[in-house]
Amino acid sequence: MYRVFIPADPDGSGFSGLRSLLPGDVELSSKTGKAHMAVIGRPTPELLRAISPEILLIPYAGVHPETLELLRSLGSIRVHNLHHNAGAVAGMALALMLAAGLGIRASDAGLRRGDWSTRTDPGKTMLLEGSRVLILGFGSIGGRLGAACETLGARVRAIRLNPDTDPRVHTPDRLHQLLPETDFLAGCLPLTRRTHGMIGPDELALLHPRSVVVNVGRARVFHEEALYEALARGRIGGAGLDVWYRYPGDPKNTLPSDLPFHRLDNVVMSPHRAGAYGVPELELRRTEAIAGAILAGARGLAVPHPVNLELGY
Amino acid sequence: MYRVFIPADPDGSGFSGLRSLLPGDVELSSKTGKAHMAVIGRPTPELLRAISPEILLIPYAGVHPETLELLRSLGSIRVHNLHHNAGAVAGMALALMLAAGLGIRASDAGLRRGDWSTRTDPGKTMLLEGSRVLILGFGSIGGRLGAACETLGARVRAIRLNPDTDPRVHTPDRLHQLLPETDFLAGCLPLTRRTHGMIGPDELALLHPRSVVVNVGRARVFHEEALYEALARGRIGGAGLDVWYRYPGDPKNTLPSDLPFHRLDNVVMSPHRAGAYGVPELELRRTEAIAGAILAGARGLAVPHPVNLELGY
Repeated sequence: MYRVFIPADPDGSGFSGLRSLLPGDVELSSKTGKAHMAVIGRPTPELLRAISPEILLIPYAGVHPETLELLRSLGSIRVHNLHHNAGAVAGMALALMLAAGLGIRASDAGLRRGDWSTRTDPGKTMLLEGSRVLILGFGSIGGRLGAACETLGARVRAIRLNPDTDPRVHTPDRLHQLLPETDFLAGCLPLTRRTHGMIGPDELALLHPRSVVVNVGRARVFHEEALYEALARGRIGGAGLDVWYRYPGDPKNTLPSDLPFHRLDNVVMSPHRAGAYGVPELELRRTEAIAGAILAGARGLAVPHPVNLELGY
Repeated sequence: MYRVFIPADPDGSGFSGLRSLLPGDVELSSKTGKAHMAVIGRPTPELLRAISPEILLIPYAGVHPETLELLRSLGSIRVHNLHHNAGAVAGMALALMLAAGLGIRASDAGLRRGDWSTRTDPGKTMLLEGSRVLILGFGSIGGRLGAACETLGARVRAIRLNPDTDPRVHTPDRLHQLLPETDFLAGCLPLTRRTHGMIGPDELALLHPRSVVVNVGRARVFHEEALYEALARGRIGGAGLDVWYRYPGDPKNTLPSDLPFHRLDNVVMSPHRAGAYGVPELELRRTEAIAGAILAGARGLAVPHPVNLELGY
């Protein structure tokens, strides 16, 4: 019997739907006790010690920094992510690129007052077709985003930490050469020691005044004050941001930064929802991906999407 | 000498930029008088009689109904369009699909007040990945839009008036069968006798309550009151509309319909700007496309994008 610990409703993925996808020799349990695998995003040290799993499956992408520290200190647990929502996140990235580039917010607000002026005054409109897109991070999300941008007639390049044979992919030492030739800069990076603050004042200063920044990775890849200042002073054209510098607390009353991004008209603000949590089609796909990972574990096959605890992703 | 009438600044395309792209045996003039070709969007009957051109080049897509009537009555003028901005229009269509499907407006407005609730409540969120897209009109714009949707993991079908060997393309008699299987309905049609009111109350009733309607073609392909009612009563999930039922008059104070679309939260409103009028990259491309059409006319070659005056597009 392959024992799997899973909370009754882990991130809304649906315990009973999961059961129906698994064979009889897999036991799902939400009681703490020794198990081969645990499916949980933010385990406490006590829980992990009680379960003592060989494999921790985090049922989304990324590992919270505190969880990462905990797992490093424990040492022996293999950690895996799900990438079931990479397409949804890439879709949100494209939505934010297009919305910020086309000034969708301002033109909607204007027309609701009967004001058509954005029809004849394009302002800082940046079209995707014919543009130069630079994607930071070229994994499941960045790769899908790149393909969509190319289909819409953009030229795509990417920065990846590890060298790649894809001629579009460059190493981080080329960043300063590529930024002046960039119309859309899209962040799809996890937060690690190497990506923290990767785009700071010097990097933003290399972008041109109509350029658009999008971030669906982790906020602190972009230096908070430098990004705010570049937007507030019009040194870049706009931004679409799904990830933030401050998380709630009170989800009805928490501004997402110490700085007043919420007063900027050239920002499209999204409360970290690219992963489409709770959307029925995606939750079904999450359940299927969890079942696939459990079955691989139970059969001794390679479980997809291992996390390198040293690198942090 | 091949004589071309063109107003000094036809739709912002830039007379001098155009001159530099043409050979010496082409004469550009903004004085009325006999010419081989006229480059103008809405000629008066007097102007057309004075110029008496063989070819009228309308420097954008579509023909205004009054111009169409005038040209039908004159009979002998060959009419051509430009499709230089098909990629920009397809980009706006995708922007509106994603913005309406993801509820970008509401989540932006919420987060600006510190409200993160759309993060955990997806509402009627409709993801493009895995969705079923039905495109009305599958020419330069619809074709590009379809390719982008497929790259993002959607299944694309299209309705076209004329039969097509592409297995994705269906004739209008199949519309009622396809609508119940549609998540995104994208209008990319010109307004003609056959397309006017093509999507009315019966058609909208066949869509499901999370479905999203987008229109970048002409407004009256969708029945105004039926579309308003479907949105106001939540019978469909949302809409992204770039084309409208009422045009300004006073561009600072004209609501785009007799009905209060501007009070609906599930609509993304855009003041007919998909064509990206005035965006530098597009105006350069427009100038190049005008030059190409003039050169083809001057050399007796086929001028691109002829308009069938009987069909109206």
